[in-house]
Amino acid sequence: MISLLEFDKTPSYQSVRDAAMRLRGITVRTPLLESLALNEKLGARLFLKCETLQHTGSFKFRGAYNTLSRLSPAQKAAGVIAYSSGNHAQGVALSAKLLGIPATILMPEDSPTIKLNNTRGYGATVVTYDRYHQSREEIGEKIAKDGNLTLVKPYDNYFVISGQGTVGVEIAEQLKARDTRADICTAPTGGGGLIAGTSLALRELSPTTKIYSAEPEFFDDTFRSLAAGEILQNEDGHRSICDAIVTPAPGKITFGINKLTLAGGLVVTDEEVKAAMRTAFHYFKCVIEPGGAVGLAALLEGKVDIHGKTVVAIASGGNVDPALYSDILKEED
Amino acid sequence: MISLLEFDKTPSYQSVRDAAMRLRGITVRTPLLESLALNEKLGARLFLKCETLQHTGSFKFRGAYNTLSRLSPAQKAAGVIAYSSGNHAQGVALSAKLLGIPATILMPEDSPTIKLNNTRGYGATVVTYDRYHQSREEIGEKIAKDGNLTLVKPYDNYFVISGQGTVGVEIAEQLKARDTRADICTAPTGGGGLIAGTSLALRELSPTTKIYSAEPEFFDDTFRSLAAGEILQNEDGHRSICDAIVTPAPGKITFGINKLTLAGGLVVTDEEVKAAMRTAFHYFKCVIEPGGAVGLAALLEGKVDIHGKTVVAIASGGNVDPALYSDILKEED
Repeated sequence: MISLLEFDKTPSYQSVRDAAMRLRGITVRTPLLESLALNEKLGARLFLKCETLQHTGSFKFRGAYNTLSRLSPAQKAAGVIAYSSGNHAQGVALSAKLLGIPATILMPEDSPTIKLNNTRGYGATVVTYDRYHQSREEIGEKIAKDGNLTLVKPYDNYFVISGQGTVGVEIAEQLKARDTRADICTAPTGGGGLIAGTSLALRELSPTTKIYSAEPEFFDDTFRSLAAGEILQNEDGHRSICDAIVTPAPGKITFGINKLTLAGGLVVTDEEVKAAMRTAFHYFKCVIEPGGAVGLAALLEGKVDIHGKTVVAIASGGNVDPALYSDILKEED
Repeated sequence: MISLLEFDKTPSYQSVRDAAMRLRGITVRTPLLESLALNEKLGARLFLKCETLQHTGSFKFRGAYNTLSRLSPAQKAAGVIAYSSGNHAQGVALSAKLLGIPATILMPEDSPTIKLNNTRGYGATVVTYDRYHQSREEIGEKIAKDGNLTLVKPYDNYFVISGQGTVGVEIAEQLKARDTRADICTAPTGGGGLIAGTSLALRELSPTTKIYSAEPEFFDDTFRSLAAGEILQNEDGHRSICDAIVTPAPGKITFGINKLTLAGGLVVTDEEVKAAMRTAFHYFKCVIEPGGAVGLAALLEGKVDIHGKTVVAIASGGNVDPALYSDILKEED
């Protein structure tokens, strides 16, 4: 039986490598794409790490599978619960299915239909809540306690962060195979699990790479927390199309890492995100969801100077409703 | 100087291997994706070979680069001409740019804007014609003769077919790495270069794989030619959204191969193609253009029985105008 205290440990490069071993043959080694035409336009060499092509359409499957695969037989039999705007939900649901674990998922009632349906499609029991008036943490912990379920938090979890870090391992290896390395890497940042794990990997494998969180306007808690040196909350009452990453504040474990590993935080508007989604459609033929395109948007909009540099944007997910995607494609830049 | 007679030779497995060597490090080794959710829905294991993620957004870059890289210095200096509905155009334009060769491209005046713009974006000179009333072959041969340009035909060319065949090499290798092999492979078929080259590779590397051409309704010339044992033309006066593959008849070289290597031909409607594009959006987060989705459509629609089988659909291109793609996403299945 894994003590839940294990979940609260601080991940390291070694725990990321360990996750990479565990996930080999299970997760997709997603492609690192570049567009020669876009490179020329930008005057930079830009790579897109397509976690959109990961199982369940986002990187979240990595951390979820890494975590669930570590549970004891008794924990597996009792089942797991997760709360998520949708991508962690799908990651947990598919992992649970592959490992034969019952899963209950707590999702905002206004999650994209595609995410609700996919989560149910993987066989999970979905419970919805009102994200603007209810605390998912409280509801999740109550259901976990009542049913003796293991709560798998979306980012503040040792195995989750370590699993997400395998994205960074792949980026370093894939660039090395091309005889290059990244000057800059950006990742969409909600709770900070992806960028915490990725930065642990890159700090070891590519120490000169500067890593920046990317967030939507009004949800720039990591940017402001990094600047302040302490965890700050987002103001209530704002909305963003980036449903995947509108978390209230950085995680404790993730921020503990990120304040040491990141070069800073970048912030983009919803309009800049939409433009990045169109760029990805045009140059990469990749469907990116709004929250997944924030890191690309930050680079395309020059929130950090990329001229003459080799840069990587992690496209963290592709689960966007077709109607919204259609509308975004039809808008003008 | 390469004699143009070289272009008319019949490709072989060896010429495909030779192309694979030539293209190493130049072309993208495109991912072979599967969706666990779609597999479950279909009761089959379906892989998508994403040539949408190839440079220029289609497999055509393979054959174009393989051909242009073989030209003599004098031929390179004089330049090349190609006629194309758009994907071969972009493949030739980018190859020419990378190799420092002037390129003139003859394109239908009603080509998708994205294809016209991209081709110009790679620095090629674009000449347009009326595809319903003018012969691109006649215009192309005249320009070639007048300017002493080397004409690079879109499919009936030894080096082009050999280059496209590297898709088949990769499919076989990628499946082998997963300890499996394909029972069935489908490829969108216009002039037949992709499927001819691919079938040469698969016949050698995966001899039990049955390979089927996939074509849109009214442009099923390969299907009917295979059945008749001789080259048949398409009837005039029809239209299809599959602009990439609405060729008038199979090529001579390609048909000479395909009549020996293919198990048969499959035909789909435009509506079935649109449904396949939506499936690719949903399960693979991949943008496929109409002509590129024909092989996937044939499998999804059960034009050949896939139940319990391992099957591969080549998604041959992703160059679709955003307005059309938006409209297709919004339609109901």
